[in-house]
Amino acid sequence: MIDHDLLARVATVNASAEFNRWAGFEVVSAEAGRVTLRMNWKAEAGQYSGFLHAGLIGALIDTAGGFAALTRAGMVLTSHFSVNCLAPAVGNAFIADAQVIRAGKRQIFTRVDLFAEDSAGGRKLVATGETILMTVGA
Amino acid sequence: MIDHDLLARVATVNASAEFNRWAGFEVVSAEAGRVTLRMNWKAEAGQYSGFLHAGLIGALIDTAGGFAALTRAGMVLTSHFSVNCLAPAVGNAFIADAQVIRAGKRQIFTRVDLFAEDSAGGRKLVATGETILMTVGA
Amino acid sequence: MIDHDLLARVATVNASAEFNRWAGFEVVSAEAGRVTLRMNWKAEAGQYSGFLHAGLIGALIDTAGGFAALTRAGMVLTSHFSVNCLAPAVGNAFIADAQVIRAGKRQIFTRVDLFAEDSAGGRKLVATGETILMTVGA
Amino acid sequence: MIDHDLLARVATVNASAEFNRWAGFEVVSAEAGRVTLRMNWKAEAGQYSGFLHAGLIGALIDTAGGFAALTRAGMVLTSHFSVNCLAPAVGNAFIADAQVIRAGKRQIFTRVDLFAEDSAGGRKLVATGETILMTVGA
Repeated sequence: MIDHDLLARVATVNASAEFNRWAGFEVVSAEAGRVTLRMNWKAEAGQYSGFLHAGLIGALIDTAGGFAALTRAGMVLTSHFSVNCLAPAVGNAFIADAQVIRAGKRQIFTRVDLFAEDSAGGRKLVATGETILMTVGA
Repeated sequence: MIDHDLLARVATVNASAEFNRWAGFEVVSAEAGRVTLRMNWKAEAGQYSGFLHAGLIGALIDTAGGFAALTRAGMVLTSHFSVNCLAPAVGNAFIADAQVIRAGKRQIFTRVDLFAEDSAGGRKLVATGETILMTVGA
Repeated sequence: MIDHDLLARVATVNASAEFNRWAGFEVVSAEAGRVTLRMNWKAEAGQYSGFLHAGLIGALIDTAGGFAALTRAGMVLTSHFSVNCLAPAVGNAFIADAQVIRAGKRQIFTRVDLFAEDSAGGRKLVATGETILMTVGA
Repeated sequence: MIDHDLLARVATVNASAEFNRWAGFEVVSAEAGRVTLRMNWKAEAGQYSGFLHAGLIGALIDTAGGFAALTRAGMVLTSHFSVNCLAPAVGNAFIADAQVIRAGKRQIFTRVDLFAEDSAGGRKLVATGETILMTVGA
């Protein structure tokens, strides 16, 4: 269930990051511990074969994981993230679905799935990742 | 010692990736098993506090690791990469120094250090990472 | 649904590894792409505070991931694994639940959850992990 | 340069962990930010082919990284570790060389190299890893 206050809060942080605006990241949904982020394909996001650059795969995973953590712990800083490239990231859009696995006082752990969406709306899992975030004391 | 043929080859691949051109990645040096990549700061690369976005930290690490692998194994595909954010990534430029740790027939493992450069040319280690790449059969 | 042929096959590999026998790893269930591994607590498995040693957390995650891959691809070799320690690993038994996320021709990716079981049979997620395995050509 | 007080302190922690005693981990050297750990091969440490079990590779990496962190920050807890298996871990002994990359107030990051030693004393890099540790407040 989408939490509209949370969604507005996450969307505000998203809009405040210049890279997110350049990339066209859009916060599609947010609830406590879970955020979905979407990016439409654009040519400037490509690697040498024209697939989504692994750097942007990582950016989507890191950002979605950070936003999921934000729903549980307020402002956070990325400490670590990892990315598994499962299949060529080709699509009209990319959707990162992030979930908090454990929210401690000092650290938040998340898992993220990244899907490619084709022109018919079909989705394929193309990458997975993990993020570890540090809480930022009040 | 810079290998000028290798440098030209890596620079050509770098120039063929639209994201690398947008980000302004520049291949500074290349030798067998080692590549240095540089990116000048620009506002569109920032996260919400105006530091370099962790996604771009990852993009620099993934790209530099892939280029180091390329010097040993030709075209490769990223399988996995991870990023440790050690300190706020603030600087005039960012330099990723990637080294091949092990080049097998099917997999290449690299380690990458990412430095921030200040206006006086001083460098600080702000992130580290690892990449695993799959060789692409001829 | 447990596949009894697969279970027997995985249990045979498990019994062939001396460390697994020492640790007391038991294959509880196996189906295509999913394996559950169990280990009863014993004092020799402890770190300095008497919790399960992170090395054994990793061993359970690596082993369960490898067995899940084996159900899809036969013999495999660990290429990479990672471990997140979410909470102190204290319990009467530990259960690693591994799932194949992607089985390619050359690489298998898995995700693993590690639960601690208390004396009443209650379970708590204490660690998560990922494994990447290379297939071993016939 | 070995610091004998630090070495004694790390060796005491090592001796207090039952798993470390079972495995035969020995702290070979310790200085601020760097620890070397050694383990002689024994059959109970083997996987199904008789190589060192990836779980023990991870245990050596996690333990050496934790000890390196201890030299900088006192008692710590593992938050995350990762392991790259570069080559079959076959040898008479295994040596883990861990180095602190960054020691913050809350987190310590380390890098670890794992070498196999043959009967002639020759060393080969068989695995690498990273560990992230949380400091434990006084």
